[in-house]
Amino acid sequence: MERRELLSEGNVKQVYATDDKEMVIIHYKDTIGAFNNIKRATIKDKGILNNNISAFIYEYLNAHGIRTEFIRKLNSRDQLCRKVELIPLEFIVRNRIAGSLSARLHIEEGKRTENTIFDLSYKNEEFGDPLINDHHAVALGLVTYEELEKIYEDLRRLNECLKQMFLKAGIELIDFKIEYGHTLSGEIVLADEITPDTCRLWDVQTGYKLDKDRFRHDLGHIMDAYKEVQDRLYAIKE
Amino acid sequence: MERRELLSEGNVKQVYATDDKEMVIIHYKDTIGAFNNIKRATIKDKGILNNNISAFIYEYLNAHGIRTEFIRKLNSRDQLCRKVELIPLEFIVRNRIAGSLSARLHIEEGKRTENTIFDLSYKNEEFGDPLINDHHAVALGLVTYEELEKIYEDLRRLNECLKQMFLKAGIELIDFKIEYGHTLSGEIVLADEITPDTCRLWDVQTGYKLDKDRFRHDLGHIMDAYKEVQDRLYAIKE
Repeated sequence: MERRELLSEGNVKQVYATDDKEMVIIHYKDTIGAFNNIKRATIKDKGILNNNISAFIYEYLNAHGIRTEFIRKLNSRDQLCRKVELIPLEFIVRNRIAGSLSARLHIEEGKRTENTIFDLSYKNEEFGDPLINDHHAVALGLVTYEELEKIYEDLRRLNECLKQMFLKAGIELIDFKIEYGHTLSGEIVLADEITPDTCRLWDVQTGYKLDKDRFRHDLGHIMDAYKEVQDRLYAIKE
Repeated sequence: MERRELLSEGNVKQVYATDDKEMVIIHYKDTIGAFNNIKRATIKDKGILNNNISAFIYEYLNAHGIRTEFIRKLNSRDQLCRKVELIPLEFIVRNRIAGSLSARLHIEEGKRTENTIFDLSYKNEEFGDPLINDHHAVALGLVTYEELEKIYEDLRRLNECLKQMFLKAGIELIDFKIEYGHTLSGEIVLADEITPDTCRLWDVQTGYKLDKDRFRHDLGHIMDAYKEVQDRLYAIKE
């Protein structure tokens, strides 16, 4: 399968058409951004690691009955995926309070909560990707209440599946953000990526951060951490 | 029933103990605030009008089977109410998009939406009363999912009841904010007030604003508008 024209380009990925109108090629770049892309950098070969990690995880999810856009990894930076129309919402799933929520609610980072916390962000850079709730998303015509109900059900299953997978790699899944899209046939599937760019991942024993917080907060050893995640996932024995 | 010690004082009301431990006296002041109380003023006799309006509405609600803290009006500024422990959440109900939501989502003021929009704000002045969602409220220990479900059900009934009541007065209810509290016996009842301070109220024919937006945006004739609301409600024939 060959790349044809560039269909869209985001902060960290490019999407190319293919000769099959139901499929696209997603290409992972080395760019990294934080704080609504105010802090930006390029980190050599990050795209290769994230392609490896996300491909591993989406294969794992496909094998565990979770419907995703992912078909297969093509090469070091490219994946073949089903073509989807992205719903312009970021779904954030939190098993512990960290990051922006910790700051906003004045709760210490790392606090466990009895309930799983879901956050919804309207993907609109012009408006600063504002946090919204279900009612706003419906009022904006982005999604229906019925679709949201199905997505939250899927997110709970996804979260359990990911938590268990990472735990086998000695990693605790603190939180993650994900997007959904409609396939050409109208099915809603998991889109986007699952990588240390989009998750908070802490070593189970030491709490050492294995994710983009190393970039956000200048903690150093970014690529060592991403490579550690890749290697630990590759070593998982089912 | 006499006022005893001052139990608490908010921006626009004072709460006094009475000799009955299950009852309090709520006293309406003339103060008015907007934009998280950055803009403040005193408007002579506003407290009298708001006491009249809120007392009228809570009597109407009690008569229509909606459980509230309100018992009866005592005098021009005082109401006798059941003592409640307030849940530190503001519930905002929107029939059209206006105010802060209009600004945040870049949607023109006055747009009708097919769904009723609910917003939730965490009452904590130190944190700037941040907008939160149901999951945050549960994680903060403010309320349970079961209590929220009941409250949203109550809010839908309340909204329908208020819309119809205001319509009889030639007024469209655009949005309102309200609080709930637990009585000493643990029942959740409507607390707070329903006045032009807490609602957006537009004349059905002309769209003329009959609410606190006249103060927020320096539109003038604030007390004329509040008196108009009072007089129109008093003239409602069931």
